[in-house]
Amino acid sequence: MRIFGEIEGVTPGDQFENRIALREVGVHRPNQKGISGSAFEGADSIVLSGGYEDDEDYGDVIIYTGAGGQKNNKQVSDQELIGVNLALAKSKIEKLPVRVVRGHKHKHELSPVKGYRYAGLYDVESYWCETGKSGYKVYRYKLVAQKHSISAHLINEPVDKYLTPGRKPSTINRIIRNYQKAQNVKSWHKHQCQVCGLAIKTSAGLYAQAAHIKALGAPHNGPDIESNILCLCPNHHVMFDNGGFAIKDNLELIGIEGKLRTTKKHKINIELIKYHRNHHYKHTP
Amino acid sequence: MRIFGEIEGVTPGDQFENRIALREVGVHRPNQKGISGSAFEGADSIVLSGGYEDDEDYGDVIIYTGAGGQKNNKQVSDQELIGVNLALAKSKIEKLPVRVVRGHKHKHELSPVKGYRYAGLYDVESYWCETGKSGYKVYRYKLVAQKHSISAHLINEPVDKYLTPGRKPSTINRIIRNYQKAQNVKSWHKHQCQVCGLAIKTSAGLYAQAAHIKALGAPHNGPDIESNILCLCPNHHVMFDNGGFAIKDNLELIGIEGKLRTTKKHKINIELIKYHRNHHYKHTP
Repeated sequence: MRIFGEIEGVTPGDQFENRIALREVGVHRPNQKGISGSAFEGADSIVLSGGYEDDEDYGDVIIYTGAGGQKNNKQVSDQELIGVNLALAKSKIEKLPVRVVRGHKHKHELSPVKGYRYAGLYDVESYWCETGKSGYKVYRYKLVAQKHSISAHLINEPVDKYLTPGRKPSTINRIIRNYQKAQNVKSWHKHQCQVCGLAIKTSAGLYAQAAHIKALGAPHNGPDIESNILCLCPNHHVMFDNGGFAIKDNLELIGIEGKLRTTKKHKINIELIKYHRNHHYKHTP
Repeated sequence: MRIFGEIEGVTPGDQFENRIALREVGVHRPNQKGISGSAFEGADSIVLSGGYEDDEDYGDVIIYTGAGGQKNNKQVSDQELIGVNLALAKSKIEKLPVRVVRGHKHKHELSPVKGYRYAGLYDVESYWCETGKSGYKVYRYKLVAQKHSISAHLINEPVDKYLTPGRKPSTINRIIRNYQKAQNVKSWHKHQCQVCGLAIKTSAGLYAQAAHIKALGAPHNGPDIESNILCLCPNHHVMFDNGGFAIKDNLELIGIEGKLRTTKKHKINIELIKYHRNHHYKHTP
């Protein structure tokens, strides 16, 4: 299984003797390729190794070049949005974190003198294609460091207990969103919105959002499980979160026409649906 | 004009003798109301002053209670999502920053002994209604501090010059998104998507997104002007940013059917449309 996010026991700054060591620890698994990933799952790691003249490295911001179109380390044809290039685009639309590694051949003050150095997690902020230095089309990815991140998919949330009377924490805790569960729900529905049936088409594949029925984090503290997640298009996600519609216990919609689409695998917790309806749907006294 | 974000010359932590002083400086303008705002523009500031038993204050996270339903400082009826309550909901869907002020009557370690203290900018993360301590429905708003923020509407971006050969900055600069321009474009189109005509309905009013044609920030460095902004629904925004469709010079769409909807006031820069088409629409070699 492809692992997104931090690898247990590996800290940004850690050095590795060679690609085999990177592979064994699981930081970057392919032996030669610069991008680890598949078009279906997304990309989990990249290595900067000086092989692409269009790479730009500003430390926390990296403009990374896609793969392909090279012969003897020279760009001789256009790149396409396929294979690992599509994988990196997928990581963008799915907001998946990418491990970044700098190799000694990538000339940069943050590169190691020999071997490889793990830099930490980056987000793919955008991707586009343009004419590279060679005159051929290349795909480019803007990667931005997840600063202060200590593990994958972390979001800042106050600790649960802050709502317990008499207890007031002075620090902010972090909860881990379980992205696999969100992916499960999206895949069960083939990325089709459970309200309108639409699956958004992008150049990186179909797109949908995982909407939590009872919000994660305090004060709602909804559970991060499939029965608390809906597969929605961005439009219906905005409406669902902001009182545009709610769902009856029989899954008919209130506020808009229709009924929630379901699949056999995807069980929805009616108590959570009720919580959403009572808290987020416009209250008319 | 309602000012969103920091007031020039005022720093978080600054103290004010009374409501008149808060008003004169522009931190919080109403003389008595806890929420400053209108349903049309959104809310720009709030004061915590101990008047609502359902308020919860955890420093960087505040659960703030909406206005209304009180008589002699007691909750005697349900609150509604109207007036300033709707204004705070509007700030949520429009991502407008809210200035937070703590008064001496709000018992909290961060409150001043007398007068008022400005706490800084907060985002409205969510709003909902529930039964308050009184047994009546109240609206609640989860406000989260914009940490490290020094001014309104700042986003992290590398400085422009980082693309100039030979220059490599070690710091990250910040650019200011001009939210007023985004609001202008949305209002010219009555929040209707320029692709499909849909205006998303939420309990806080109509919702649309301002999509930059040539992306802001490096390396694209698109200008933050109305002719570089489209009014799109979230679905078409995702598609536009991720190669789902592009726009021809004559404003016909590529990748999907139709033609971009326009209004007289909203001039669109064709060079920017061309840039987007060449960089973000799926390249077929």
